[in-house]
Amino acid sequence: MTARSQKYWTGDVSKLLRVRDGFRLSKVDPDATPGYGRSKKHAADDLVEGATQLEGLQEQLYAQSTRGAGDAVLLVLQAMDTAGKGGIIRHVVGAVDPQGVALAAFKKPTSEELAHDFLWRVGKRVPAPGRIGVFDRSHYEDVLIGRVRSLAPADEIERRYGAINDFEKRLADAGVRIVKVMLHISSDEQKARLMDRLTRPDKNWKYNPADVDERALWSQYMDAYQTVFERTSTEWAPWHVVPANRKWYARLAVQHLLLEALEGIGPSWPAADFDVAAERKRLAAT
Amino acid sequence: MTARSQKYWTGDVSKLLRVRDGFRLSKVDPDATPGYGRSKKHAADDLVEGATQLEGLQEQLYAQSTRGAGDAVLLVLQAMDTAGKGGIIRHVVGAVDPQGVALAAFKKPTSEELAHDFLWRVGKRVPAPGRIGVFDRSHYEDVLIGRVRSLAPADEIERRYGAINDFEKRLADAGVRIVKVMLHISSDEQKARLMDRLTRPDKNWKYNPADVDERALWSQYMDAYQTVFERTSTEWAPWHVVPANRKWYARLAVQHLLLEALEGIGPSWPAADFDVAAERKRLAAT
Repeated sequence: MTARSQKYWTGDVSKLLRVRDGFRLSKVDPDATPGYGRSKKHAADDLVEGATQLEGLQEQLYAQSTRGAGDAVLLVLQAMDTAGKGGIIRHVVGAVDPQGVALAAFKKPTSEELAHDFLWRVGKRVPAPGRIGVFDRSHYEDVLIGRVRSLAPADEIERRYGAINDFEKRLADAGVRIVKVMLHISSDEQKARLMDRLTRPDKNWKYNPADVDERALWSQYMDAYQTVFERTSTEWAPWHVVPANRKWYARLAVQHLLLEALEGIGPSWPAADFDVAAERKRLAAT
Repeated sequence: MTARSQKYWTGDVSKLLRVRDGFRLSKVDPDATPGYGRSKKHAADDLVEGATQLEGLQEQLYAQSTRGAGDAVLLVLQAMDTAGKGGIIRHVVGAVDPQGVALAAFKKPTSEELAHDFLWRVGKRVPAPGRIGVFDRSHYEDVLIGRVRSLAPADEIERRYGAINDFEKRLADAGVRIVKVMLHISSDEQKARLMDRLTRPDKNWKYNPADVDERALWSQYMDAYQTVFERTSTEWAPWHVVPANRKWYARLAVQHLLLEALEGIGPSWPAADFDVAAERKRLAAT
């Protein structure tokens, strides 16, 4: 198992980060680096090592899907603004062959999307076999901003937790390994990162005045996340809260979660579904 | 201009590879490395240098699109089997942030696609502003295999060349820089690569017995490509024939064509569309 062969982990990362009974978001230290036994200066090299493993496993996953295997991986990314979703996609997912990645970014729903059930738009973007799907924001927005901003009636919000669990169960049963990640930064760290966006001319475009309005609702968002964890961290689709004040740690941790998911599938090169010797002869004759 | 600052090019690559009046595909040497002044051992380092430039330019392209700029790039990849389309996507396009790439692979049309005009399915996959779109095969299949295998009446095939030119003109006018590439390998090189797929257990899955059937039609395909070049290499969307027997050269050349396209757009960091000082004050108060 390659991920487990990574000597720089001193503990079982996915266990350390997984949301279990009695989990309290407020007890998680966003500065922590659970399970990582080395200092920041090793992080870049360790990420490169993991990237090679991830690329190789995904290629096998894709290869076996061409012969009918139904397995896929779905990474669900949720976080407050500036927590580093984009960096995860660029530096972790970016290591994988683009042909093996299905990225879906969910923004403010369109009027067509709003006319359907909240799971309609995400259902259409579930990764095909062989792919690593990534949801940049997801159906969880409908119980996060949906709850904080009262975008739907309370009983509808309540209904959604169960609907999400059923939906994810169906995906899991169909062969999709679901890796749910909340990148957790502190409010102070967000302030510093937003200030950085305001200061650097090459970062200005990432800043949106509305970010400060959302920021004012920080504690309501933390409460909404706490409820999400209590209601939707299931056996088939558990949540992981990744401390993300240190970007280098968050990237290593999410990479590791993906590697574990792929190793759990255990893809292998498929056997030829044709007569190899006969094909060699036929090709040689051309 | 960063691409032009690359000291390892001894000539204007896009001019060297561009299809012009009087072009003959049969005169192109698939082993050649036009414009590259160094040996293979430098190719990997040179590709890394270009990758950094490509990633940076694409980020600026994306940034300016968030403030309304309409520019995008579309790489159209055509080739015989095994010529290296996948390698271009993995090693050239793969260097770009996945959030900035829109990849569309066109396979045998579905019955729904066949019920529409041949441009219907590609029109839906034109890249949004800020993205590098990649067509892995394209509307050109409809005048390549479409012609060789007589999948449509002769007068319909004839109609398509003009329809393609009109379609691409409309895209170009809307801000899409179109980079059309045919990766050109020799028949012998294809034979060796197919044999490799039959020999290596980790490559078996890429082999399809139908590839040998297509191979028997090699000269008909070359004729169909020659016609494509004569009819659809336009000022707004010229074709480039990239010798591809040496994979390292083909990757460098396509990377260079993309860099040139981006430099032609000349993206820049957009100015803030909000009051930066006021936002700093507002954020500081949180």
